[in-house]
Amino acid sequence: MTAAILSIGTELTRGEIVNTNASWLCEQLTALGFEVTECTTVADDKVEINATLERLERTHGVIVCTGGLGPTTDDITSACVAELLNVTLMRDDAGLLELRERFTRAGRTFYESNIKQFDFPQGATILPNTEGTAPGFQIRIGSAHSYFMPGVPSEMKPMFERSVVPTLANLTRPGQHQIRFKTFSMPEAAVNELLAGVEERFGITIGYRAHFPEIEVKVLAKAAQQAEAERLARLGADEVRRRLGNILFGEGDITLAQSVGNTLRAKGLKLALAESCTGGLIGHLLCQQPSSDFFLGGVVCYANSIKQAVLGVDPALLQAKGAVSTEVAAQMAIGARQALAADVALAVTGIAGPTGGTPEKPVGLVHYAVATALGVTTHHTQFPRSRDQIRLHAAYSALWLLRRTLLASQK
Amino acid sequence: MTAAILSIGTELTRGEIVNTNASWLCEQLTALGFEVTECTTVADDKVEINATLERLERTHGVIVCTGGLGPTTDDITSACVAELLNVTLMRDDAGLLELRERFTRAGRTFYESNIKQFDFPQGATILPNTEGTAPGFQIRIGSAHSYFMPGVPSEMKPMFERSVVPTLANLTRPGQHQIRFKTFSMPEAAVNELLAGVEERFGITIGYRAHFPEIEVKVLAKAAQQAEAERLARLGADEVRRRLGNILFGEGDITLAQSVGNTLRAKGLKLALAESCTGGLIGHLLCQQPSSDFFLGGVVCYANSIKQAVLGVDPALLQAKGAVSTEVAAQMAIGARQALAADVALAVTGIAGPTGGTPEKPVGLVHYAVATALGVTTHHTQFPRSRDQIRLHAAYSALWLLRRTLLASQK
Repeated sequence: MTAAILSIGTELTRGEIVNTNASWLCEQLTALGFEVTECTTVADDKVEINATLERLERTHGVIVCTGGLGPTTDDITSACVAELLNVTLMRDDAGLLELRERFTRAGRTFYESNIKQFDFPQGATILPNTEGTAPGFQIRIGSAHSYFMPGVPSEMKPMFERSVVPTLANLTRPGQHQIRFKTFSMPEAAVNELLAGVEERFGITIGYRAHFPEIEVKVLAKAAQQAEAERLARLGADEVRRRLGNILFGEGDITLAQSVGNTLRAKGLKLALAESCTGGLIGHLLCQQPSSDFFLGGVVCYANSIKQAVLGVDPALLQAKGAVSTEVAAQMAIGARQALAADVALAVTGIAGPTGGTPEKPVGLVHYAVATALGVTTHHTQFPRSRDQIRLHAAYSALWLLRRTLLASQK
Repeated sequence: MTAAILSIGTELTRGEIVNTNASWLCEQLTALGFEVTECTTVADDKVEINATLERLERTHGVIVCTGGLGPTTDDITSACVAELLNVTLMRDDAGLLELRERFTRAGRTFYESNIKQFDFPQGATILPNTEGTAPGFQIRIGSAHSYFMPGVPSEMKPMFERSVVPTLANLTRPGQHQIRFKTFSMPEAAVNELLAGVEERFGITIGYRAHFPEIEVKVLAKAAQQAEAERLARLGADEVRRRLGNILFGEGDITLAQSVGNTLRAKGLKLALAESCTGGLIGHLLCQQPSSDFFLGGVVCYANSIKQAVLGVDPALLQAKGAVSTEVAAQMAIGARQALAADVALAVTGIAGPTGGTPEKPVGLVHYAVATALGVTTHHTQFPRSRDQIRLHAAYSALWLLRRTLLASQK
């Protein structure tokens, strides 16, 4: 069955934000067995919205639409659909009451402009919004099963997964299975070469997605029966896993920080950080999931005075070798391990730019150290990109050194 | 004049890559004074491509198309356009010879599949590709000025800037101006109410964009002349600025962290952090731009042992009040200010969830404190959302308290 995606919002047609919803929905719908033949973006404009819905309805079995459901005057999607279908808007009093109560419980002011988010075209099925205020809805437009969701990705994605996927599953028979692998430390072209010939040999499709700084590898198998697709995907995935070897850090949605956290947890080790150029980013990545059972905390030692006062880095060494050096990284890790009474400590110091490098220590140079009861392991990278990319790559490289150190040790 | 963007490629409709070309082109065309009313993505499929071009030609003065110009068999854009216009494909022998010579000079193998990249619909003007092998072309489809470029962003962008912009500039007179405001601390619906009636009174359009946890407000004015549009936008913006008052923290692309950094820099103050539930996120936000002139560093005190050992929080107080309390937040800020020898310190402690709350201290409760030479200011929020949202909202709320404290003080 063919599907179309319609993204509504003048912020999109003016290029103020990148449309990540459309690509996410394309991926989801493709994985569910739909053929997405068109994605269209239009402004918050009634004529454009309705002309597009009318056109898409004639050629697609499913339309998935995002945007224009919020409380402000430029949010007009529900009114457009009602006009297109020649029905009135009906207020969902129960949903509105529930939102009022949610606001009251949280001690938040309820603004009257929130009310219009509970006006839906007559005949619509409401899709609850667990993350925000604007519910979505589902309705038939001609022969097309049509779904309308908010444009905010953190609200749209759970709504799609909880309320849309179950109804879509009735419209298509899968007969396909996908297994996803997460890798780091090797460029996409090199990962591609590692897996040469696997597609032909196992009758599967391998896709690559560079989600900086990770490379995701997707194994997709199709067959007449779902069970056969799953069997083929598993056979191919076994070979992919074997060939990826130690650049593979996990499967599915796991992050590198989660994977390292799992290893620390399994070993019963407590971690401390000493972050200079990453400024807290590694701590942030570790705390995206509950982490108090392995993460003690850290020192963000952006200034050299902190490196000395809190971590005990030797001022003479700082002077002689500079803050961005193997020796200072090592002392930072040793100092953090001691000051925070940790089993293992990870330290990062580097030149994130955009200015400030020298010929000997250019922008993009970052030193790493891991201190354990057994001693210190160091590493460095030279990655001359933008400040954002240097810092994110440094956070990943630091976690990667920690991972390698943990996996190499017996305890 | 209206413009449409057409992106061609099955890798897009399958969601394997995010379409960053479309948003980039939307931004460029908007800045040139075009109104982009539609962006459409279709697969590498002749019927879809030609039906879409035919439709877009009827309603748009300009069509900008990317993708499908490469050497492989699924690159069919030139052939589609030739068929649509009922003309033959003509080979650009001179361009082909030049590419062969370029390959010879670089010692690269010239594959015969490269030849088809030099076949263009009769009547097309060729757009040179300085970064890759596939040139683009320009041609009239009906009344629409139509441009075809490669899908690789690093090839498309310079081609657009060098060869497309000069010809587009003849087609449009701008006549529009936009001014953007960044706000925090009030929900979208409330911001909308603050600005009630401004659109009608000033003849402007106000758009809202929730980029969690910020709300962006955009003032757009249109007029026959550019100077008049700018005048109208400025008049409207003055009123918007006045009404937004102290929820406004900046204009254009500035972030809250940058805005707070600018204030610290202007006052010559050095900042230290004490982060518990945010785990380093505030430091990360401050370090996204160079910040060593106002940011010393911080302590990520995820574990209570760190709060005591490094920040000197009283164990009896921790026991009596709990880690998530006004009193502990205050001691964390005072301790960080002292331990890191800072002028001002910002502390955060809260319950990010998803589990671990109690009826008295539910998930989402976060306490903040700012310590300066004059004393301590505290604040707390209760924001029961997902872990990611609680942590990001807490980082913003902490920076917001710091901002208010700095703006209220004389020094």
